Amino acid sequence: MPVDQLSTTFAALADPTRRAILARLTSGEASVTELAGPFEMSLPAVSKHLKVLERAGLIARGREAQWRPCRLQAGPLKDADEWLERYRRFWEESFDRLDEYLGEIQKQEKKPGRNTFQKKEDQNGRSK
Amino acid sequence: MPVDQLSTTFAALADPTRRAILARLTSGEASVTELAGPFEMSLPAVSKHLKVLERAGLIARGREAQWRPCRLQAGPLKDADEWLERYRRFWEESFDRLDEYLGEIQKQEKKPGRNTFQKKEDQNGRSK
Repeated sequence: MPVDQLSTTFAALADPTRRAILARLTSGEASVTELAGPFEMSLPAVSKHLKVLERAGLIARGREAQWRPCRLQAGPLKDADEWLERYRRFWEESFDRLDEYLGEIQKQEKKPGRNTFQKKEDQNGRSK
Repeated sequence: MPVDQLSTTFAALADPTRRAILARLTSGEASVTELAGPFEMSLPAVSKHLKVLERAGLIARGREAQWRPCRLQAGPLKDADEWLERYRRFWEESFDRLDEYLGEIQKQEKKPGRNTFQKKEDQNGRSK
């Protein structure tokens, strides 16, 4: 039962349809019918996803009764990005280690008479 | 039922305890007992969170039966960050608009005889 804003944001993003809706809204506001277009999904099902996005503050909807265009509100995404920011150095470190490993592999391959394929397989778990 | 990796990552991040566990692991690997320390939570409850993080590939656990230290794996966070990257210009635009709006307010405040508080309230919905 997430109640904090960041949990609500991440929960709203944890669905490919909802992410596709946000992606569509980057090119401008759209009605529910327009948003439903690319999905094999009923309008009520799309409306349900829109409600999740609206509650998370990721979209806002117009006030007009018939045509209630949805538009992207990126504020909560900024907070999610700031949270991830703190972890950047960790994935950069992982890629440095992978580079190092690939460098080692290349050195091994240059040595004659080594079974480099076997070596690669042994370390596969570590390198992922 | 999210099945794609990105949905699994965001779902795993949609919980304050799991984010706190990841934050703790930025300072080095830790056992379940060590991770449970700061939370008013049973070991099984913490273990459940660790399983979600492990399935999402956000942590890896040592093989030793008794002491199975958890360590951070930041790869999936990189993918989440890349997804968010595409929305950066939208929150930057929002802040530009907010700057513009605040600039306007300041100009209005310099004009004598205007009720700036009323003006601020009218536009409040737009500026958020």
